[in-house]
Parts: sequence; structure tokens; C-alpha cells
Amino acid sequence: MYKLNKKDKKMRNLEVCLSPALVDLHELEGKIVVVIDILRATSCITAGLATGVEKIVPVATIEETLSYRQKGFLVAGERNGKKIEGFDLGNSPFNYMARECQGKSVVITTTNGTQAIKKSLPAKEIIIGSFLNLSAIVKYLQHKQEDIVLFCAGWKNRFNMEDTLFAGAVAEQLAQEVEMNCDASLAARQLFLQAREDIAGFLQNSSHVKRLGRLNGAEDVQFCSKIDKFDIVPILQGNEILPHLPYKG
Amino acid sequence: MYKLNKKDKKMRNLEVCLSPALVDLHELEGKIVVVIDILRATSCITAGLATGVEKIVPVATIEETLSYRQKGFLVAGERNGKKIEGFDLGNSPFNYMARECQGKSVVITTTNGTQAIKKSLPAKEIIIGSFLNLSAIVKYLQHKQEDIVLFCAGWKNRFNMEDTLFAGAVAEQLAQEVEMNCDASLAARQLFLQAREDIAGFLQNSSHVKRLGRLNGAEDVQFCSKIDKFDIVPILQGNEILPHLPYKG
Repeated sequence: MYKLNKKDKKMRNLEVCLSPALVDLHELEGKIVVVIDILRATSCITAGLATGVEKIVPVATIEETLSYRQKGFLVAGERNGKKIEGFDLGNSPFNYMARECQGKSVVITTTNGTQAIKKSLPAKEIIIGSFLNLSAIVKYLQHKQEDIVLFCAGWKNRFNMEDTLFAGAVAEQLAQEVEMNCDASLAARQLFLQAREDIAGFLQNSSHVKRLGRLNGAEDVQFCSKIDKFDIVPILQGNEILPHLPYKG
Repeated sequence: MYKLNKKDKKMRNLEVCLSPALVDLHELEGKIVVVIDILRATSCITAGLATGVEKIVPVATIEETLSYRQKGFLVAGERNGKKIEGFDLGNSPFNYMARECQGKSVVITTTNGTQAIKKSLPAKEIIIGSFLNLSAIVKYLQHKQEDIVLFCAGWKNRFNMEDTLFAGAVAEQLAQEVEMNCDASLAARQLFLQAREDIAGFLQNSSHVKRLGRLNGAEDVQFCSKIDKFDIVPILQGNEILPHLPYKG
């Protein structure tokens, strides 16, 4: 008989994928993927579903988005950070929390976030993460057994800072319970530890915050940097993202 | 007449490419690329050329490497961190500093480093960076006008920590003189600032150091983490890497 220590116990694995261009390096089958697009798709989805939107359908193309209009959906999305002409909603979380979205279904297409969701489809389960629901995501993952991939949507396949910081926040909170063998998780965690006292401030020099600054998105950045404003976990079921309360298991 | 300030002056651009899988996102034409494979190809090349190796030819395949034997080259390389059977040298910098390498030509193939050199070929100039010649690299870049891409060779297309730290070290030293608009350069710089007091210690948890630990590479890691042991800049000229003294312009 010997004492079981941490090394003997097989721990779940956690990996961080820093860009959609690197996702082929990660096996997704059988795993839970957390899709991360802090500025702003996954923050919008979280804010919307937490405040009354019934469901959100992510689609890849503008054409596909428009085909949902006749089904009574609100049509939402952006390209290059700007609302698509003729759409009901853009990509600001405030759009999704507005009174006219209550009880509605929304179809959304974005430059990076919805594409990352599509690339995650081989996974066993796909959930949507943002600073707005950080603790809910962590608790949900703690109730599961599967290996975890934190999938940063990035910006047009480039590494980005805000998604990486969020991946680092999740990695930091799960550090005692998971095995992390990839340097991306190590880097994400280190960067989060540097940024944790002031996420929005740390992001001031990041490329996407500068881009949004030019598009008058400063309020969005402040809002999307808030931790634990909501306690839902958005989960992809079929082709719909629905809200889920993690404490209900 | 107005005073020229920093904002008016067009500054050179510096980008960091975190993985060979992301290199297509960077335009290399007309730029200087610094190829970085700290553990261990670019450290070996630097150490060898600084201590008497005449030239080093990087090639992609084992077959191509062997074809150089009849031309009198020492044959060097690794796959998956291990010396290739029958080769004269592996991928430890100590191999390249040995007496039998003095005045010799070496042909080298490695898992990541030589592949990154091949992918850099569209660039105007390709130089080889490592902690061992950090200041020489920085001074060389300061004497040039071209935009800069710091190209991390990574590990089989994955992000890795040691190459990113070195990119961060260069970015930090050039911060006042270049424009950095990509989040990868921001992240690399932040990580370097955290690691700078003890590079080898910081790398203890990284995936490649663990891998080398299993392959008895601890001495190599210590050596490859030393800053400014040599003052040469290895430069690719044709298909050969030759040593260059930066102070001579």
C-alpha cells in the first residue's frame, strides 16, 4: 500500500489554443472547448443570454445570417469591428442587453468569434467564456471530468491579448486541479497574473483596444473587462447557444 | 515650421511571429527576420560560429544533410530533441564548441530551427538570434533601417516560451526606436520583463525544458539562457550562415 500523491493521480489536461490558425494542433474530440472572443462576440453572447435573450445562433456568413430574418430572429454581427449595414444589432454588449432583445432569438456573425465556434465543432461540448462570466465558467468546468481546451478566437488568426488574458484567468483558477503541459497555458497564466489588478488598463496598449478606440468602443472595452457580472454559462446545443446556470449541474 | 516629434516621425515596425504556423500573417519581403530557436538550434549556430566553426548550412531533411558529408562537412542535427544516429554532432551547443569543429563547415537539420530559416527566405535579410548574442543582435538591428520580424521557431508549430522570451528581450531593448502594433510583441515583452532576472529559472516549467530534462539537457538549458556570451551575428548569405561582427557595420 502506498500513499496516493498528486503525481500518481491522473489529472485532467488543460490546453490553451492561442489562435484559430493553431487549432489543428489540438485534439478537440471528447473535450470541452471554451470559446473566447472577449472583444466582443463572447461578451455579447454572455450579456445577451444573461439579460433576457432567449437563444443565439452563431453563423459564419452574412448571407446565412440574413436568411434567419424571416424566421423572426434579430440579425446581429460585425465585420472588422463595425456593425454590418442593415443589421439590427452590432457587436456591442449594450446592444444585446437592450429592451428590444428581451425574449428574442438572435442570429450572429462576427469576424472571429463565430468562426472559432465553427472550428470547435469536433469537441464534445462547446461553452462560451468571457470575463463577464469567469467564475461561472470555472465552476462549470470543475463539475466536469473532460479535458479542457481554452480556444482564443484572436483577430484574423493573430494572437490577441484580451483572449489570452481570459484563458490565463481560467488556467490560474484551475491550476491545482488540472495538468498544463503547453507553454501557451503557462504564458497566458503569467500574463493574467500581471494584468489581474487592472484588466482594462493592461489592455490599453493592445491592438484591438486601439482599433476599438478608433471606432468609439471605449465603453465596450470597460464593460467587457468586468469580472463576474453574470453567472450563466452559454452552451452550444445543436446550432443554438442557450443559457445555463452552472450550480444546477 | 513645426517641431518634429516622435509621432510625426515614421518609425520602423517590429512584429513578433509566435509560430511557423502563423508566419503567413506576416509580410517578410523587404524586412529583416531574426530566426529564434533558443533550445537549441540558434544557440548552437551562434556558439559554433563564435568559437571557430567556419560556416553552417541549414537544410530541411536528413537526406540532404547526409549529401554534404562527401563535401567534407561535419553532419549535425536532431529530431525530437535527440541526435540523429550516425551524425557527427547533435543539437547541444557544447558539440559545436568542441576542438574538432574548429575551422570546419557544418551542415545542420533540426526539428524547428532549420524549418523556420526556410520559411524566412522571402525576407531581405535573415539573421540568427539567441540569448548568447542578444546585444549583438540588438546593435545590428539598430544599425539597419528595415522593418523587423522576430520569428519564433516554436516546437512543431506550437508556441513556446523560450523563443518568446528572447523575442521579448529584443522588443524591450528596441522599444524606444520601433513601432509595435501586434499583441504578440506586447505579450513577449511582458513575459520577458517577468523572466529577466532568472531566465533559466523561469523556463523550468516550460514544455521544452521538461522535454530536455528527460533527455539530460539541463546543462544545455543553463548555457542557452546565458546572455551576451558572444558578440557575433550569424547571417544567412546564399545558403550559408556566416559570422558577422556587428560593430564593423
